[in-house]
Amino acid sequence: MSGSIFGTLFTVTSFGESHGAAIGCVVDGCPPGLALTETDIQLELDRRKPGTSRHVTQRKEPDAVEILSGVFEGKTTGTPIALLIRNQDQKSGDYSKIMNTFRPGHADYSYEHKYGVRDYRGGGRSSARETAVRVAAGAIAKKWLSEKYGIVIRGFMSQLGEIAIPFQSWEAVSENAFFAPNAEIIPQLEAYMDKIRSERDSIGAKIDVIATGIPPGWGEPVFDRLDADIAYAMMSINAVKGVEIGDGFGVVAQRGSVHGDELTPAGFLSNHAGGVLGGISSGQDIRVSMAIKPTSSIPQDRASIDRDGNPVQMQTTGRHDPCVGIRATPIAEAMLALVLIDHALRQRAQNADVVAPLPRIAGLAPDGQQDIPSPKA
Amino acid sequence: MSGSIFGTLFTVTSFGESHGAAIGCVVDGCPPGLALTETDIQLELDRRKPGTSRHVTQRKEPDAVEILSGVFEGKTTGTPIALLIRNQDQKSGDYSKIMNTFRPGHADYSYEHKYGVRDYRGGGRSSARETAVRVAAGAIAKKWLSEKYGIVIRGFMSQLGEIAIPFQSWEAVSENAFFAPNAEIIPQLEAYMDKIRSERDSIGAKIDVIATGIPPGWGEPVFDRLDADIAYAMMSINAVKGVEIGDGFGVVAQRGSVHGDELTPAGFLSNHAGGVLGGISSGQDIRVSMAIKPTSSIPQDRASIDRDGNPVQMQTTGRHDPCVGIRATPIAEAMLALVLIDHALRQRAQNADVVAPLPRIAGLAPDGQQDIPSPKA
Amino acid sequence: MSGSIFGTLFTVTSFGESHGAAIGCVVDGCPPGLALTETDIQLELDRRKPGTSRHVTQRKEPDAVEILSGVFEGKTTGTPIALLIRNQDQKSGDYSKIMNTFRPGHADYSYEHKYGVRDYRGGGRSSARETAVRVAAGAIAKKWLSEKYGIVIRGFMSQLGEIAIPFQSWEAVSENAFFAPNAEIIPQLEAYMDKIRSERDSIGAKIDVIATGIPPGWGEPVFDRLDADIAYAMMSINAVKGVEIGDGFGVVAQRGSVHGDELTPAGFLSNHAGGVLGGISSGQDIRVSMAIKPTSSIPQDRASIDRDGNPVQMQTTGRHDPCVGIRATPIAEAMLALVLIDHALRQRAQNADVVAPLPRIAGLAPDGQQDIPSPKA
Amino acid sequence: MSGSIFGTLFTVTSFGESHGAAIGCVVDGCPPGLALTETDIQLELDRRKPGTSRHVTQRKEPDAVEILSGVFEGKTTGTPIALLIRNQDQKSGDYSKIMNTFRPGHADYSYEHKYGVRDYRGGGRSSARETAVRVAAGAIAKKWLSEKYGIVIRGFMSQLGEIAIPFQSWEAVSENAFFAPNAEIIPQLEAYMDKIRSERDSIGAKIDVIATGIPPGWGEPVFDRLDADIAYAMMSINAVKGVEIGDGFGVVAQRGSVHGDELTPAGFLSNHAGGVLGGISSGQDIRVSMAIKPTSSIPQDRASIDRDGNPVQMQTTGRHDPCVGIRATPIAEAMLALVLIDHALRQRAQNADVVAPLPRIAGLAPDGQQDIPSPKA
Repeated sequence: MSGSIFGTLFTVTSFGESHGAAIGCVVDGCPPGLALTETDIQLELDRRKPGTSRHVTQRKEPDAVEILSGVFEGKTTGTPIALLIRNQDQKSGDYSKIMNTFRPGHADYSYEHKYGVRDYRGGGRSSARETAVRVAAGAIAKKWLSEKYGIVIRGFMSQLGEIAIPFQSWEAVSENAFFAPNAEIIPQLEAYMDKIRSERDSIGAKIDVIATGIPPGWGEPVFDRLDADIAYAMMSINAVKGVEIGDGFGVVAQRGSVHGDELTPAGFLSNHAGGVLGGISSGQDIRVSMAIKPTSSIPQDRASIDRDGNPVQMQTTGRHDPCVGIRATPIAEAMLALVLIDHALRQRAQNADVVAPLPRIAGLAPDGQQDIPSPKA
Repeated sequence: MSGSIFGTLFTVTSFGESHGAAIGCVVDGCPPGLALTETDIQLELDRRKPGTSRHVTQRKEPDAVEILSGVFEGKTTGTPIALLIRNQDQKSGDYSKIMNTFRPGHADYSYEHKYGVRDYRGGGRSSARETAVRVAAGAIAKKWLSEKYGIVIRGFMSQLGEIAIPFQSWEAVSENAFFAPNAEIIPQLEAYMDKIRSERDSIGAKIDVIATGIPPGWGEPVFDRLDADIAYAMMSINAVKGVEIGDGFGVVAQRGSVHGDELTPAGFLSNHAGGVLGGISSGQDIRVSMAIKPTSSIPQDRASIDRDGNPVQMQTTGRHDPCVGIRATPIAEAMLALVLIDHALRQRAQNADVVAPLPRIAGLAPDGQQDIPSPKA
Repeated sequence: MSGSIFGTLFTVTSFGESHGAAIGCVVDGCPPGLALTETDIQLELDRRKPGTSRHVTQRKEPDAVEILSGVFEGKTTGTPIALLIRNQDQKSGDYSKIMNTFRPGHADYSYEHKYGVRDYRGGGRSSARETAVRVAAGAIAKKWLSEKYGIVIRGFMSQLGEIAIPFQSWEAVSENAFFAPNAEIIPQLEAYMDKIRSERDSIGAKIDVIATGIPPGWGEPVFDRLDADIAYAMMSINAVKGVEIGDGFGVVAQRGSVHGDELTPAGFLSNHAGGVLGGISSGQDIRVSMAIKPTSSIPQDRASIDRDGNPVQMQTTGRHDPCVGIRATPIAEAMLALVLIDHALRQRAQNADVVAPLPRIAGLAPDGQQDIPSPKA
Repeated sequence: MSGSIFGTLFTVTSFGESHGAAIGCVVDGCPPGLALTETDIQLELDRRKPGTSRHVTQRKEPDAVEILSGVFEGKTTGTPIALLIRNQDQKSGDYSKIMNTFRPGHADYSYEHKYGVRDYRGGGRSSARETAVRVAAGAIAKKWLSEKYGIVIRGFMSQLGEIAIPFQSWEAVSENAFFAPNAEIIPQLEAYMDKIRSERDSIGAKIDVIATGIPPGWGEPVFDRLDADIAYAMMSINAVKGVEIGDGFGVVAQRGSVHGDELTPAGFLSNHAGGVLGGISSGQDIRVSMAIKPTSSIPQDRASIDRDGNPVQMQTTGRHDPCVGIRATPIAEAMLALVLIDHALRQRAQNADVVAPLPRIAGLAPDGQQDIPSPKA
């Protein structure tokens, strides 16, 4: 299947370049009867949009979404839902100097080797702007998962550069521009970012996403495991360089007597697995972490080459996020929602008639190592 | 697409349970004209097979592979290659007691909720035995990639429990049962594993895989990125809980001025990206790491429940790897090979006519942080 | 894969309802470097558009296409090409009376059973208007096939109701509103259609499409045969009820000594197979025929039921084609182009390195039974 | 997706050559809990197997199937079901003379252009032997459809060469080697076939398949229409050159006032549509016809060329069916079953929550034109 289509049954076909006419997508396979308005989608887009604080790009994009099809009298009809977001604030002039050079850390060099050509305006297809489309499609998935199963998917920033961010509350997340679950640490994060910017540099971040309410049984046993599809989804986000499920790389030095989550009639006693056993959901919270690299576009001299192979020194100026991780939380939530709805549909396709051997046991409050309550709707 | 099929153009359809009649797969889409014998595949299977040291399961499985189709007069014909491995050493009696209980850390509970039924003998489909099929299919991919492009894919264990294993040489890898790239550390690893076993416990590990020789331009820009497909492939291996590309989680606290790999006419000056820029190969080495959880099957009392929901205490005895990571290196290599061949075919499908703007520049010897030479054929 | 996506490597994701905001599609996987403008696409759309003669629907739709992405400086970039056609002439008022009834021969009844809801305005998603999107996407495929391989794909009406239309010339096709390859028969066809309309009825038609210049070797041997994918593509067009390759149903009473096309050094001696042998192109012309049913929307009293299950008599008035076959030729050409480009890419993905055992032999002028010259560019 | 995989959710991955070690397939996505034994599959295979009368090939193949996986304690587990049929009666010596020539009407020429190589023994992958695998997989689909929905799928030969076969009864079908629904015509068919054979020739046939009991709502509205997928499935069978749904090519000269099936509270008044409206099942019988070409392998001198491009005269001797249509009925039934189960699963994936606006109305006894009662279980 071509590379711009996500999903098996609930599919998202993405299109658009940063400085072209528009970006958008076609969502196909959505169950009918879901109440859906442009406002439902806009609310999620607004969480991701640029220009909301001094710590992100100052590009002004309202990211206003138009639903072109698939919704009739306020409800989904089961046919493709096309979403369109016109580009507005394109300063193509800013980018003309990068036409013949390859920015370090960017996709310029690899795109040209792949296609022989690239839309160099604003990174074209490789721009982080493309992620707006994921958030829009994810909004539909989130709404269906919430209404049908009560599933809640929420993320937060757990680390900014060297600063680990202790989880304090879900409420805090929406009250700062960092999606940090901790109000007290905000001044420290702001000072840190101001320093990074003043040094004309950028920095990485770590994002966590937790989904609660997933019934046991979603996923596939071998290749299309729920966690494999999550890893694919997260690593497909611009700038992500690592993905963990549950304890992630913490398992390397872990004993089996610690890792294997014990079961009791009252529920699981811990959640080291992160809600997935053998590729299939256990009913516990799904816990995902990801590493976001520092923005490659920085106003410092960097070595590169031009299209003739000559050495050049180049700075990347313009309006760039000094930490792309700051706006990544809604994107990560959206991608998790897209994976989950796809597996929800796959599960009932094959197994609608299954009678489980016993009722689902509870996912108890996560253990001490990971003292984060399940997000609530 | 159903969940037991891997790949888009070079597909692997896997089948078989640990204690059923056989395991195997169908490889479809292989280019014709590749010289291929059962020996080519057997050599890779023998690297993974159980019983080669006291540190792995003592199950005796020759894992003898039969090619059923798709090869004629010693060469692939372009039609499906079916591979069959009959199961031999099935001690089903060992497993009867787990029929009505759910082993902690295992897929038992999630399988029953998904399917309402499971083949409980030896873990059935969720057994690590399934990975033999991946190694067999991967052997075909590896051979084609090597012959067509000179690509070399090699892995090693970089950490066993608390013990980090410094890279010494590629030669060392094949000379010990751990796939450790360091001869001197072997006695320490052996003592460590003896201790783990004597404590009736298990332990995690970290595996690294490096592929060299990949042309720039493989991958897709948005969803089916090369790194996203690698993350999917690796996370689909039993027991993997985390995947990193390039510097992985190291990017969280990294500056953009460090991370973005500079280009010079003589080549890239570093490889923090791990060989993938914007989802597309850059021509540098592809560097992947993964975290393998400790085996859940341990002979210690663990809390669980039975199918009636009653609490039970259970030990998992039988022949289990105390560290599944020890045999994971050939599996990780195989999965990387399967991703790469698929993208090799995808690339020439769309872009066979592309003339790149300049010749590929070298991937220089990796920088100081990651002092591992590229593997050679 | 969801049901609104066509193709494996060159994919078309279609969206839009007859009376919604817009129709359109996303074409993904197009090779880069193809010169492409909106005019290239518009030319094909204009061949299909309504209102060009009194024999088709009088709906006024300019069907003006906008390219939203994937084209930069006049050439395709290899990234998704989104095409948008805004709906203009929507007289939703015309359709309100069908909201609670099921038009005989229409998809109303089956849609409601599938989705529980339908966009009843103008047939919604099941409207023939959806085929404009296929023509737009097909225009891109046609252009690439023509420029890369010199492939020509042309269709014509071979029968209108009881009137068989003898093939006279390709030139004639573009000179009448019927796509009839015969200038002399036009007055007869016009009189026939006037009679059908005056009787408040509709009529079927037969369309033939011929593609010339296809290299031997395209297709797959078992399921995704070239002819199987053609049959799928053609039967997916609204109103098509039968598809033939080569001699089609003529083979039922044919002898093997007649059917098997003999080979000589100068070329094949006949083309009963229609250019496909064992699912793979032979290099001869690909010949496809299809049967188009009469329009179901006719201004006659017909028995039906309403949503409460009560019997009703209903006429379908409004602006309908009395013979949907009249505008079907460009659609059939487009679908054949979409199948061919997909298999062109698949072929070079797997078999780019193949050296054929001998040069391709000519497809000789078709034999007497089928005296139609190959279409020329 | 590679070309040897059929289906989206219920997938069949086929492998094997006529004279290789074995043929077989992997069925993935089958719902769990279906009682299944090798006998269930063998019964269908025996209907198709060669050597049952003097009118078919005398190759002796027991076609004994082995289930390798996916069934535990007599029931499907939801994991891949691998089916293996070892080849037995391979007389490779018979075929050596065709190694360097291209049999007219066969895939030899197109295979060599595609792959540069072919397994020339018995047609290799293009042999009609491959269809045994479809029958085996279809047996599983048939059983599930029957048990879950009461769906019955039955076919018959409706024409042999020039001889139309009037439908008399379903009982007659199983009582003759032709699958003819008419006992009285058998002597005529036998004499006809004896004549064809004595003239060293072969002949075509027409097969009809009817499925009853399909709920309304299966299928997709645009590309993956139920009838489009049926056309694909049928045209993918060796030797099929035409496919019709409902009235098929009869619609060309049909009026809309005849074609559109009227609805009444008691049911549909006719079934010209063949059970599919707008690509979605209407609940009426699904009616499919297909044209099977005459066998290309005939013992007459035919013109061809060899691999050096020289002209040759060749006869194809050996054990061939003089009418491949005679054994095609079980294959056509199997393919229809595979399409239906796939759409059954797709339908409940997306639309499990749909409440239809009114109960399904009956499919009345088909009208006079098509006086065939629905098949009963």
